[in-house]
Order: sequence, then structure tokens, then C-alpha cells
Amino acid sequence: MCDVQPVDVERALARIRKRVHHTPVVTCTGIDALVGARLHFKCENLQKTGSFKIRGACNAIFSLDDRDASRGVAAHSSGNHAAALAQAAAWRGIPASVVVPEDASCVKRAAAEHYGAVIIPCGTGQTAREQALDDLILRTGAVEVHPHDDPNVIAGQGTAVLELCEQVEDLDAVLVPVGGGGLLSGSALAARSGSGRISVIGVEPERVDDAARSVRTGVRQPPTDAGSIADGLLTSLGELPFRIIRSGVDDIVTVSETDIVRAMRLIWERTKLIVEPSSAVPLAALTSGALDLRGRSVGIVLSGGNVDLDHLPW
Amino acid sequence: MCDVQPVDVERALARIRKRVHHTPVVTCTGIDALVGARLHFKCENLQKTGSFKIRGACNAIFSLDDRDASRGVAAHSSGNHAAALAQAAAWRGIPASVVVPEDASCVKRAAAEHYGAVIIPCGTGQTAREQALDDLILRTGAVEVHPHDDPNVIAGQGTAVLELCEQVEDLDAVLVPVGGGGLLSGSALAARSGSGRISVIGVEPERVDDAARSVRTGVRQPPTDAGSIADGLLTSLGELPFRIIRSGVDDIVTVSETDIVRAMRLIWERTKLIVEPSSAVPLAALTSGALDLRGRSVGIVLSGGNVDLDHLPW
Repeated sequence: MCDVQPVDVERALARIRKRVHHTPVVTCTGIDALVGARLHFKCENLQKTGSFKIRGACNAIFSLDDRDASRGVAAHSSGNHAAALAQAAAWRGIPASVVVPEDASCVKRAAAEHYGAVIIPCGTGQTAREQALDDLILRTGAVEVHPHDDPNVIAGQGTAVLELCEQVEDLDAVLVPVGGGGLLSGSALAARSGSGRISVIGVEPERVDDAARSVRTGVRQPPTDAGSIADGLLTSLGELPFRIIRSGVDDIVTVSETDIVRAMRLIWERTKLIVEPSSAVPLAALTSGALDLRGRSVGIVLSGGNVDLDHLPW
Repeated sequence: MCDVQPVDVERALARIRKRVHHTPVVTCTGIDALVGARLHFKCENLQKTGSFKIRGACNAIFSLDDRDASRGVAAHSSGNHAAALAQAAAWRGIPASVVVPEDASCVKRAAAEHYGAVIIPCGTGQTAREQALDDLILRTGAVEVHPHDDPNVIAGQGTAVLELCEQVEDLDAVLVPVGGGGLLSGSALAARSGSGRISVIGVEPERVDDAARSVRTGVRQPPTDAGSIADGLLTSLGELPFRIIRSGVDDIVTVSETDIVRAMRLIWERTKLIVEPSSAVPLAALTSGALDLRGRSVGIVLSGGNVDLDHLPW
């Protein structure tokens, strides 16, 4: 049994829908012709704070009772969750502190500061992050809002696909990027919320393929530290997301760094949308041939748009 | 009396609405805070062929009777009209030829070829363009679809603002860029189509300010050849657009090249939308202080998104 159910995604949408953008769905006949499918891009890059992460953070923070909320919130994050937590905390009028590794994207760190977060720098790697966060919580008494291993965060992230299913009636499949697994597990719950049968497929950079290996072996696998241009997907698969993904996700496929950059540029050129590398990972599965969905109606979550315009990967 | 009326914009929308995208309207609290107004960006950069020009080209081509259509269509264009004409002609199954000056944007020229246009290169400047087009029409018998001096094109371009007025109920003003004046004159007609009183304001690069000078003096003024980064706005104000603009537009303001680049980068960073320099011209009027619309609800047409990603202006 899981601690989060499809109905929780519906409740999350009711809770957050007046605060976050109802993002548009964009289609592009040029890309459709290339991959032979009808693609529907859910534009979470146009979401408040520039990524879907505001959905989970907002749902988690507005699910807190007043006493817990008054202690403030804290998290570790490589970027988008930090900005989202800061913005959602500001809406609720409570403080947010975020542990950010030294190698995190400058743009994402600056965004978190812009929305009012207190930034606590830490070393790179999972252990350093966790230690710094434990220290912070001990010192301040803040409530942790984990970027993906939290039922309210997962339910919140699922609202993007729940909206997408309302916006596009005939979806056969939904593709989302996988890092910690919050978006993928939430999407799996959302896809089960309606009456139709929609396949949910995760796509992961092959250099950081712990989710694919975990699903294949049935046991949560340790992360690699190989790194990827998809800086939003470097965290390892969480325990709760893994439990949901094991039962609710149809497949996880992997793509190369080159395929990610190519797909990212294709999205920029053809759809005129600014997406960060993580957002291009699902399309890369189709353009590289790793996944063949010819003839199908496919939803793709463009997860975020926070990139450094002075350092584009081409 | 004008040869095109508000009702023609409504008819144009009925004619083209199943072929073109109903583009989304995007808001951005960060930019709103900077300029002190509530901005509503009508995303014609997400339109088919990457700009609003498909609206006018589609309306003009689908207004032709079968006999005229069978002769094919022709135009001169610095870029976006060329791609639009080619795409609309392909939908109707007729040939399109476009006279393109040698200094036109490579990306825009390639787009016109991609959609199937025959490209006729010509020298730079108005006279060279017109001569090359006359020769082409004499040789092929094609019907000219002028990029802005054509009632059907103007009515088509107006459909963007007509949709915007349906999407946002409380607009006080609409800002659009001015080059030949097709979009501005169409927008003026569209704004008069509803019951409300919406100000329509054109914004022009100060280096190519013939529209502003024409409205100020009441006589159509010759273009400058100073050039501007806003490559979509280099053509001189057309005769028919000028007649409509004189009576239907509230003001035309001008902005510097620096202001245009800054506004363009602001749009990229904050809205995550890829816009070409011409699209940033209206916002530049607000960010530069050339125009003060504090407290108002303002529609801004993001006219197009066709840029060369290898040559960004920062």
C-alpha cells in the first residue's frame, strides 16, 4: 500500500489551482512529422518559478497546519525545488531555508534567493547535502519539504499530468523526465485518476540511470555520480517514488547526453519555448529512437525553463 | 472610408481559426512588478510558422477564388511573411514564390524554403524588391499577396488581437510593434470590434521611425535606411495601414536599440519564451519609460519567435 493515491492528486489540484499557472499545451507539426506521433507539450517551463516544482512545494506548504507552518520550511535542492519552496513559503508568509550544493546552477540558486530563500551552501554529493540539512533543521526547527520523497510533494507534481489529461482527451501515453521520481510517480497517480488507459513512461539520462536500473532489478539502486547536462535529474530515486513507480509506470528508458542536447535545440527552434536540458529528456527518447510511439497521441511534460542564457550547450 | 472594417477581422477569424493556432496568453508577475502594470502576452511566437504573419497570409490565400488561386501567389518579404505565405499556399495546394533581399535573416529564409516557397533573391532596398517582384509576376502570372498593404492581410493580422480581447476581458490597452503597419492597423480594427474602449498603441524602433513621423505629420513619410536589430520592422509603413492607423491608433512611441535588446532578454529570462527582437519592441516602451501604463491591464502581442540561436544579441 502506498501513502499517496490518485485522489490525493485531485485534492492537490483543488488546493493549488488558484496559485499556480494553468499552463498551456503546445503542439508542433514539425516535430510530430519527425517522430511520427502527435505530441502535446505541457508547458511547465512557463509555470511560476519556471518549473513544475511549484506544484509540489505549494501543495506541501499549504497542507501544513498553522503551528507547523510557523516553524518555516527547509529542503535541500539543486535548484528548481529551492525556488519553488521559497515562492510557496512567501505566499504562505513563512520563512524558507535551502541547502544548495556548491556546483548547483547559478541561475537556479539566484532564483531561490530572488523568491526570498535563505541559502545554505554545502558540498556536493548526497551525504553532504543531507548532513547540512540535518544541521539546519536541528538549529531552526524548520519542517523539511523533501523535493520528492514526500506524499504531498508527489501529489502536487502529479497535477501537471492531471491538467494535461483534461486538456488533451485522447492521450495514449505520457512521457516525463526522472530524477528523484517525484514528477514520474505523481504522473503515474494522475494517469490512473481518469477512466482511460494512459501509459506512463519515464525517461532518464543514461549517465544517471539509477531509476531505470531500480525498476529493472526491483531493488532501489545507488545513484551514479557521472553527472549529466540535465542538472535537474541528478538526485537519486527516492524510496516513496520508487514504490509508486514500480507499480504504476510502464517503462523507463534512457537517452545519451548528445540526444538530450539535440532534442533541447529542436524544442527551442521549433516550438519557440525555452526549456532546460531536463525538459528535453523525454523528447530525446523519441528522436533518438529509444522509444517508438508512432501513430500515438503522446503527452510530454516540459518540466522547466531555467537555463543560463549566457552558457547554452551549443 | 477604408477598404477594411472591424467586421472583416471577425470574418477573417472565422475563415482561419481551424488552420492557425489559438495561441496562449502568458502572464509574468516578475515583469508586471517591474513596469507596474498587468501585462498579457499574446504568444504569436508560438503561432504556426513562428509568427502572426500566418494569419494574414492564410486569410488572403483562402479568400482567393479558385481561378486566381490556381495562378499561385507571390510576395516580397524580409522573412516571416515569406514562410507564412509558403505554408498557407501549401495548405491550399498552390505554388508560392517569394522575393527575398540578400541581407534577410538566414533563419527566416530557410523557413520559407522549408514550407515550400520558391525563393527569388534580390538586392536590398524597397526599389530592388519591387522590381524583382514585378518581374516575377509578369513571368508567372502569380497573384501578389502584399505583406501589409492588402485588406485581407490586414484583417487576418487583426485576428491576434481579436482573440486576445476574448481571452482577457479587462484590457485597457494593446501594444503592438509597427513595421509596414499590417499588424497595427489590423489590431486597431480588432479593438474596435468589441464593445469596450481599448487604446491601441504602436511601438517602433527609433532608428526606423517612419510610422511615428507619418502619424505626427499626417503625411506618410519616407523610411530611413538606418537599420534595426528588429529585422521584422524594417519595411516602410504601407498606404492602407497608414489610413487605418491615422484614425484608429492612439499613439506611436519609439524605443532605442539598447532598450529592445534588454526587453528581449527580459522576456527570454522571465517568461521562458523565445521571441525575436521585433516582439520585444512593445515591452521596451514600458521598461524604458517611453510609455507609462502603471495600474493598467495591457495586452502585448509577441509577434514572432524566429531567431538564429547561434547569434543572439547578448
